[in-house]
Amino acid sequence: MNTKERGRRRFLKGGAALAGLAVGEIRSASGQAIGSERPEVRPEDFRAYGERSRFVTSVRRDPRNPNSRTPLQDSVGIITPSALHFMVPTWIDPPDIDPWQHRLLIHGMVDRPLIFSMEELKRLPSVSRIHFVECAGSGDSLEERKKNGMLAETVQRTHGLTACSEWTGVLLSMLLRETGVQKEATWLVAEGAEPRKRSKSIPLEKAMDDVLVAYGQNGEPVRPEQGYPLRLVVPGFEGVHNIKWLRRIKVLDQPSMEKEETSHYPTQRPDLGKARWFQFEMGPKSVITFPSGGQRLPSRGFYEITGLAWSGGGAIQRVEVSTDGGRTWKDAELQEPVLRMAHTRFRFPWNWDGDEAVLQSRCTDDVEAIQPTLAEFGRIWGGVDSEYLKTTRNKVNHINAIQPWKVSRDGSVRNALL
Amino acid sequence: MNTKERGRRRFLKGGAALAGLAVGEIRSASGQAIGSERPEVRPEDFRAYGERSRFVTSVRRDPRNPNSRTPLQDSVGIITPSALHFMVPTWIDPPDIDPWQHRLLIHGMVDRPLIFSMEELKRLPSVSRIHFVECAGSGDSLEERKKNGMLAETVQRTHGLTACSEWTGVLLSMLLRETGVQKEATWLVAEGAEPRKRSKSIPLEKAMDDVLVAYGQNGEPVRPEQGYPLRLVVPGFEGVHNIKWLRRIKVLDQPSMEKEETSHYPTQRPDLGKARWFQFEMGPKSVITFPSGGQRLPSRGFYEITGLAWSGGGAIQRVEVSTDGGRTWKDAELQEPVLRMAHTRFRFPWNWDGDEAVLQSRCTDDVEAIQPTLAEFGRIWGGVDSEYLKTTRNKVNHINAIQPWKVSRDGSVRNALL
Repeated sequence: MNTKERGRRRFLKGGAALAGLAVGEIRSASGQAIGSERPEVRPEDFRAYGERSRFVTSVRRDPRNPNSRTPLQDSVGIITPSALHFMVPTWIDPPDIDPWQHRLLIHGMVDRPLIFSMEELKRLPSVSRIHFVECAGSGDSLEERKKNGMLAETVQRTHGLTACSEWTGVLLSMLLRETGVQKEATWLVAEGAEPRKRSKSIPLEKAMDDVLVAYGQNGEPVRPEQGYPLRLVVPGFEGVHNIKWLRRIKVLDQPSMEKEETSHYPTQRPDLGKARWFQFEMGPKSVITFPSGGQRLPSRGFYEITGLAWSGGGAIQRVEVSTDGGRTWKDAELQEPVLRMAHTRFRFPWNWDGDEAVLQSRCTDDVEAIQPTLAEFGRIWGGVDSEYLKTTRNKVNHINAIQPWKVSRDGSVRNALL
Repeated sequence: MNTKERGRRRFLKGGAALAGLAVGEIRSASGQAIGSERPEVRPEDFRAYGERSRFVTSVRRDPRNPNSRTPLQDSVGIITPSALHFMVPTWIDPPDIDPWQHRLLIHGMVDRPLIFSMEELKRLPSVSRIHFVECAGSGDSLEERKKNGMLAETVQRTHGLTACSEWTGVLLSMLLRETGVQKEATWLVAEGAEPRKRSKSIPLEKAMDDVLVAYGQNGEPVRPEQGYPLRLVVPGFEGVHNIKWLRRIKVLDQPSMEKEETSHYPTQRPDLGKARWFQFEMGPKSVITFPSGGQRLPSRGFYEITGLAWSGGGAIQRVEVSTDGGRTWKDAELQEPVLRMAHTRFRFPWNWDGDEAVLQSRCTDDVEAIQPTLAEFGRIWGGVDSEYLKTTRNKVNHINAIQPWKVSRDGSVRNALL
């Protein structure tokens, strides 16, 4: 028995007090602070909480689009600064939740429905894992073209609905075991505390595997736009599953067919049947972040091509880069450690001779899935040709096509998907 | 030949343009922007750059001390938020450096002295690595007692001069190879751009190994208090080597015996001689961050004891926790991945029975160095007993003694080093 298992068993043995916390027994949080000191923040004290330099102006907002996307063109390494983590949906204000009042209810097909305060959750065995969260709509380089006739210009616009953080929280599987999930149960539905109360069905098998109930992000509490004080992190699954401002989980024996999942997220899969209600995993996907659309190379000579790769299927095994429009490919270097369902930074040395060049990357994950071209993507996912993808006004999700960037002789870089 | 070596060779082959950039040939930075768009930040737009919740008030300042220390009592995972990374020295304002004007000069015993702009550095092959930076004075739980008669109360005060980030930059070894280091050279001295121009000698052997010239921290530019726009990261070495606002590196055939290194940093090592001018590596060290001094357990029952371990000697191999004042020890679980010269999060399940308990951790690194008790530390480092350490007004650095926290029956936690 390893340390982890020992810890788990100990917790369960000592968990009687928690199991006693049935629904309705909401304890007063006052007087129970697991007391960090909470000194007054004096804004005049720059050392209390250090801001970035006034010369650093990277922001989530894309100047030509109201969506709140991660500025990947400025990214380095694999951690996304929490302040720059994309936010979807963009049309709501994050709720202003007092963590001392917040509760998580787990009920439905369970023997012991439970309510947890934030303090109670933080007493439990925790884990930290580096994972990406990505919206199913990320990678759609064509959407802007459909709206206003031109391709999305920057990598923030094409791929900025993904981000990667070190998430800390408790395993949902542990909470579910405490509640005693009934044996007929096969699904759950998770719900947020915002006024609209977005919710999403998740298979119990995934919930019992690696789903996190997260209160920490990159070493501090989850930011408001990412779900403060509590969110789900569902590694590798479409972003919509990662319910923010998490307040309720109901265990079921079927998916709950929420509005979100019946209206926006079904996908055409001619290889599997006419359509598919649930398509969970993202990727494999990669994109070059430098040089990328809207940037400009000042002169010929040496550059390091760099970008990110990720897959909902597991770890990235390989990233290849082409500097000649896909005729030849060479392996890029991957930044260690390469982690499951996490952004993986790749780097590739390049001498630009001053001629036109088309740069692109493709990745392979550790279940041997390989990133497709746009034409291949159309055939796999929609049973359509790429012409359809270019012109349809239907929402197309899960686009993970190879993204080419064209470098012109003047050093300017533009989207060359079409 | 692996990808990395291929990349390196390609770069060197293509590096002629860079090698031509000798001292004096400072090129105008204007018109050479490797152009990320720099839209106006509108402060009224909360989505541009997301702040933390108003309920999150963790700050670097310790209420009873002007030093700017990391609030480890609130930490989760291994990444320290950049805004909460400790700052030493605390008595200066970070310089307000325009990155377009900033330059790094490498000169001294080299064939081709070079000046790099920030843009030129960012074109070069880069790496990202997760490393801690720790002040040599960190871990001194006794310092406050000497000043005002009571032990430092919180882990922020005792151990808050350490932090861990994903650093991105170029390897110093690559820059040094470009300059052509002469074969008699054995040391270098690095210097910052702040008015005081702190500098520190570093052995060439270390510089050619794993030292980073870093411009990125946790996915964005290094924060001003950590050296924006450029700093050294010298993995595992005392913090003072990690020169901030880096502007100059001079290659030498002996240490330069800077003020800092001759006045503050020599250490007594009776096992090696009477004293030692240079003592580079930190740790092995560990500390429990929860429960820690100043916190309070609301009731008996299950808690997860958690903390951080790190070593300048390499990776953490093992952390043990004692809940009975050191009579018995059990292995804690280590958060994966465990990285060289990086904070390592450990976790240990504990049922508090309501009686007094003394909690402490000790770590072992992968060169089999083990964290000492205070008494052992005194013997190893000062040739003194712990009574000397308790009373001396001399500065004692590198204290990596085991840190005990005592839990009283009322749940309060206090420093139990003495």
